[in-house]
Parts: sequence; C-alpha cells; structure tokens
Amino acid sequence: MAEFNSKIRTIEWIDNYSRMVDQTKFPYEFEYVNITNGQDMFDAIKTMIVRGAPAIGIAGAHGVVLFAQELAKQNLSKNEFVKKLIEKADYMASARPTAVNLMWAVQKQKEIIKNSNDNIPTIIEKLKINGKKLENEDIEINKKIGNYGAEVVPKGATILTHCNAGALATVGYGTALGVVRSAFANDPTVQVFADETRPRQQGARITTLELTMDGIPVTLITDGMCSYFMKKGMIDMVCVGADRIAANGDAANKIGTYTVAICAKYHNIPFYIAAPLSTIDRNIKSGDEIIIEERSHDEVTHINGKPICADGVNIINPGFDVTPHELITGIITEKGILKPDYKKSIEEAFNK
Amino acid sequence: MAEFNSKIRTIEWIDNYSRMVDQTKFPYEFEYVNITNGQDMFDAIKTMIVRGAPAIGIAGAHGVVLFAQELAKQNLSKNEFVKKLIEKADYMASARPTAVNLMWAVQKQKEIIKNSNDNIPTIIEKLKINGKKLENEDIEINKKIGNYGAEVVPKGATILTHCNAGALATVGYGTALGVVRSAFANDPTVQVFADETRPRQQGARITTLELTMDGIPVTLITDGMCSYFMKKGMIDMVCVGADRIAANGDAANKIGTYTVAICAKYHNIPFYIAAPLSTIDRNIKSGDEIIIEERSHDEVTHINGKPICADGVNIINPGFDVTPHELITGIITEKGILKPDYKKSIEEAFNK
Repeated sequence: MAEFNSKIRTIEWIDNYSRMVDQTKFPYEFEYVNITNGQDMFDAIKTMIVRGAPAIGIAGAHGVVLFAQELAKQNLSKNEFVKKLIEKADYMASARPTAVNLMWAVQKQKEIIKNSNDNIPTIIEKLKINGKKLENEDIEINKKIGNYGAEVVPKGATILTHCNAGALATVGYGTALGVVRSAFANDPTVQVFADETRPRQQGARITTLELTMDGIPVTLITDGMCSYFMKKGMIDMVCVGADRIAANGDAANKIGTYTVAICAKYHNIPFYIAAPLSTIDRNIKSGDEIIIEERSHDEVTHINGKPICADGVNIINPGFDVTPHELITGIITEKGILKPDYKKSIEEAFNK
Repeated sequence: MAEFNSKIRTIEWIDNYSRMVDQTKFPYEFEYVNITNGQDMFDAIKTMIVRGAPAIGIAGAHGVVLFAQELAKQNLSKNEFVKKLIEKADYMASARPTAVNLMWAVQKQKEIIKNSNDNIPTIIEKLKINGKKLENEDIEINKKIGNYGAEVVPKGATILTHCNAGALATVGYGTALGVVRSAFANDPTVQVFADETRPRQQGARITTLELTMDGIPVTLITDGMCSYFMKKGMIDMVCVGADRIAANGDAANKIGTYTVAICAKYHNIPFYIAAPLSTIDRNIKSGDEIIIEERSHDEVTHINGKPICADGVNIINPGFDVTPHELITGIITEKGILKPDYKKSIEEAFNK
C-alpha cells in the first residue's frame, strides 16, 4: 500500500494495454491490473475493478483500442474492420448503463473510426493518441473543477461527500475530491466527512484511503448519520460527483445521494455536484429518463463474503438515484459553477 | 436456528436467573444466555447482548434482583442491604444512557426496595414478582400498540422500518413490528422494507430474521436507499420504535431514524413512532435534553471483525438521533395513537 498516493494515475494507457488500479481490493491491497483485451475491459467495468464515471469513460476509450488491436489480427478488409469495431465499441458502451461518460468517451473513439480515411494501423494509432488525450484532459479538467469549486468552500469548512468522486474515480485529482484538494491546498483547516456508502462502501474503502494518504482530515460516518451532523451544525457544505446529469440539472449519482440532498435542503446546507461537462447528457430532458442500473443482490446481503441478514429476504439494489435539480445549489464544472436555471446555464457552458 | 420464532420470550426470569436471547450472534446463531449476577447483566446491556429499549428495561429490573440475591449472601443489616441495593440499582440504570425504559424499570424496583417494611427474602421475592409482572405487561402493552397501530396501516401497505423494534427488542411481539404483526394478521398483503441500520445492522441481522420467521414479506435495503423508494411511491408509511420521548414529542431512536423522518416528510409519507408510555420521559421538555450515547469506533470501522476503511480516519459514533416532533405523524402507545399537540396528548395519555 505504501506506493499509493494521489499522484498516481487510476487508469493509464501503456504501449498496447491499459493499466488500472484494482478498486475492488481497497482498503486491503493496492494492486495494478493490466487489461490486454476488450472483453476483459468490459468485465473490469462491469465488476467495478474500475469505477467512477470519468474513469470508466477512459476505460471505455481504452477498451475500443484493445478491440481494435484484436480485430487488426484478423486480416479483415478495412470496411469489415470498421463495421466490427463499431459493433464492439457499442458493446463496450453497454458495460454499465448509468454513467454517460462511458458512452461519451466511446463516442469520441467512434468518431475517429468513422471519419478516418487512414489504414487500420493508423486508425489504431489515432485511437491510442485520442485515449491518451482524454486521459490528460481528465486531470486538467478536474483541476479546473477543483479551482472553481474551492471558491465556494467556506473558510475552515467541513465538506460532506458521498461515495468516491476522487482521484480514484477519475484518471487523477478527482471531481468532488478535486474541490476538496484545491480547497485544502489554500486552507489546511478544511476537512471531510465521508459517508460509508453502502452497499459497496466506496466512501469507507476508497475515499478515506485517498484522503488520509494526502493528509486531509477525514471522518467516516455511516449513511444514516448525515442529518445528525447537519443538525449539529458540523457540516458546511455537501459536494458529490455525478454519473449523468440531464439537461434540466437533475443528477444521477451513487445510491444514497438523494437522501443526503434532501437532508441538506432541510438544514439549509449548500449541496454541490462536481462533474465535467462530459457527464452532462443534453439528450435527456430530465432525470426521469436516466436508466438506473440494478446490481447484484449479494452487494446488499453480504459484506466481505459473509451474509448479514436472514435467508429469504427480498432485495432491490439500485446502483444510483437521481437528485432533482431543485435540491442542487450549483454544478461545478471545468467551465465554472453552473447555477439555476440549469437548462440555461448548461446550454451556455457548452457554448463557451 | 430452527427453534427461533416470534413466540419466544427475548428475556425471561427463571427461578433465580435471567435468560435472554444473545442478540450479538444474529443472523448466524440463535443462543440463549443465562445471566446469573448483576455485573454480568450490566455488561450484557452495555455490549448489547440484550438491546431494544423495552427489553433493556426488563433486563435492568432483572439485574436489580440479581444484585439483591448477591447482597443477601453478605449478612448485611436490612438498612445496609437497602442502601447498597439502591446504589447497585443506580449503577444498573447507568449501563446505557439513552433508553429511558432502563431507568424507568429500575425505578419501579427501587420503589419496592424503598417502600418495603419486609425482611430481605421477602423484598427479593417482591422484586422477582415485579420483574415478572413487567415482563408480562410488556407483551400485553405491545399487543395493544399493535392493534392501535394496525388501524392506521393502509390496505396492502408497505411499511418502512429502521433498526429493530420487534419481538427481539421487547419481551415479545414488538412495538413497531407489533404494529406490522397486527396489520399483517388482518391483511396478508402488508409488507415491510427494513433499513440495514448501520453501524450494528439490527435491521439486517434481527428484523429480517424476525419477519421471515413469521412469514411476513421483508425487503432489506441499505440506509441511503429510503428516499429512492419513497420517491417511487413504494413506501406507504414509516413505523419505528423509540428509546426516549420528551414531553413535547421529540423522539430519540437508533441513529439514522432522523434521516428517514426528513425523507418521509419530503415525500409526504406518514411517519409513526410506536412505543409504550414507559418510553416517554416527562421530566424532559424536548429532545435537546436527551443524552446521546457515543459508542465504540469499531462499530463503524469494522464489520465482522474486518476493517472496512483506511487507518487514521476519525470516527464519531452516536448511537441515537432525535426526530423532532414536527416530523412525527403520531405516537402509537398502549393508550391509543397520540397526535400533535404532543405536550397535550402525552399528558392526557398518562391521565387516562
């Protein structure tokens, strides 16, 4: 574990494969996994070896390169290659349904495939270069998000966050935790309260690790506790990531976020979403159109492989919920902080 | 586990000791523990071998008998016996600070000790009889609570509950789950959603067990999910227990309850407390005066003995929170359902 620090890249293209930090083993082990073919990338996204909306966007882009490398070995005509690669790209985009960054990044690769007059090796080279570009841009974008967000963090603030929207949910630096990092760099009295985030405990397993490694004070709380600390005046703002934001500002994020947003509203505490513009899906009018992934029941009934409940219970395990725009104080993006009316401010951000 | 059913007594006085179901081992084992001395009872309450406000009330009453039996062997004068037993009773009442039922039941025993002209063996006999009486009354009271509560359960309702206010939190039948049992007896389309209730997972470990054993359909959800299902229209009412209710209706219950209450209010879903009058502490004006127990950090950082987070995180682990009276639709007691203004309706219930 000694080698982990927030300067590492959560996911990175190296020569002809994708290297990623295995996020299923936190907080026990820090391990890299090399993904060398497209199907393994699909599975890595599905099983959450890589997770976090921006990181799975990059994973999707890398996955398209991996499929391209495989298809290049099959002696296909260029037309056949393009046709099959587009199919594979669409398959890759289907690994998880909620985070739009995956579809967005795969779409960026598809544009290269479709618009290219080049031969197959050159297409592959361009896909690799584009994947690397998306990687680098992710970190730059997150630093911009962090700097804009830091402006609305009060002096000495305690920031509540849910799940992990950190360096480990992105290529590096993080979105919601990017805001924390930028704020903390200016003001070392800033601290974080991290929701455990059942069922998969990304807050406990990943956020506490990321922040303690960077020396940022973090208090772990269970998901039901947020309102207790809000009422006591111990939370100054909430900042979370997002997996998909509709044109009206409704934001899907990890299950439990909506509960936090309602409690923040009840206590008049500002509630911010931090996300790149690539998380905004202008094709959908409202959060009602966002597909919510239903995940395995074991995530609820078992912890560390051991059952926590009686046999015979029913389980529904939505991976995400939607926080309606009226509960969101602002959406912190690389183009500044968007405020209501979101329909308008989102359009303006894309036209900047 | 085959022997468990909701007809068992969670805690019961037998001859000269107290027998209780060990609640730390659910859902893996069903075991009785015999508590034969006062200090062991204090520890059983503190470590939550016995838990649930009504059940720890009975445990406290039994604990006083156990201390009395021990002191009786010391050849004390009656005055010395009474003085020492009162000290021991006060010690027993201090095992956990939030649930007032513990202080209430110990107080009932103290009244017998203080007002008695009898000799030591007769005092002990009277304490035993009183303990048994409190046990039996608990079940009768819970059935009354259940029947009153069932009247406000809509046909085919899905009832959300938090923690375990069931047969296993009382001598039998339960308070909030007493309402469920009575409603289900009339209408087998009634079902329950059970919050996991981190950190100690009483909802997952105990409520799911209790309900599945009785054939009442139960869906286990994580604590952050409640608002998701409320928004979908899948929750018709919330019913939870309480550990202490102030004279104005503010109610302390397991941490996370306040979060559920805020979400219920936001979605216009009725939120009921089910508790015996012994849970109401008319000595305190509001919930601000309720002492909230701070429990071990391990409860948050570890599950089944394994850490779930990074080293070096801060922990605050309040065992309870207070739901303010304005979020409570009604308080279901053995004297009927109290409605706002609670100051008035609580006074009236005690004078009935």
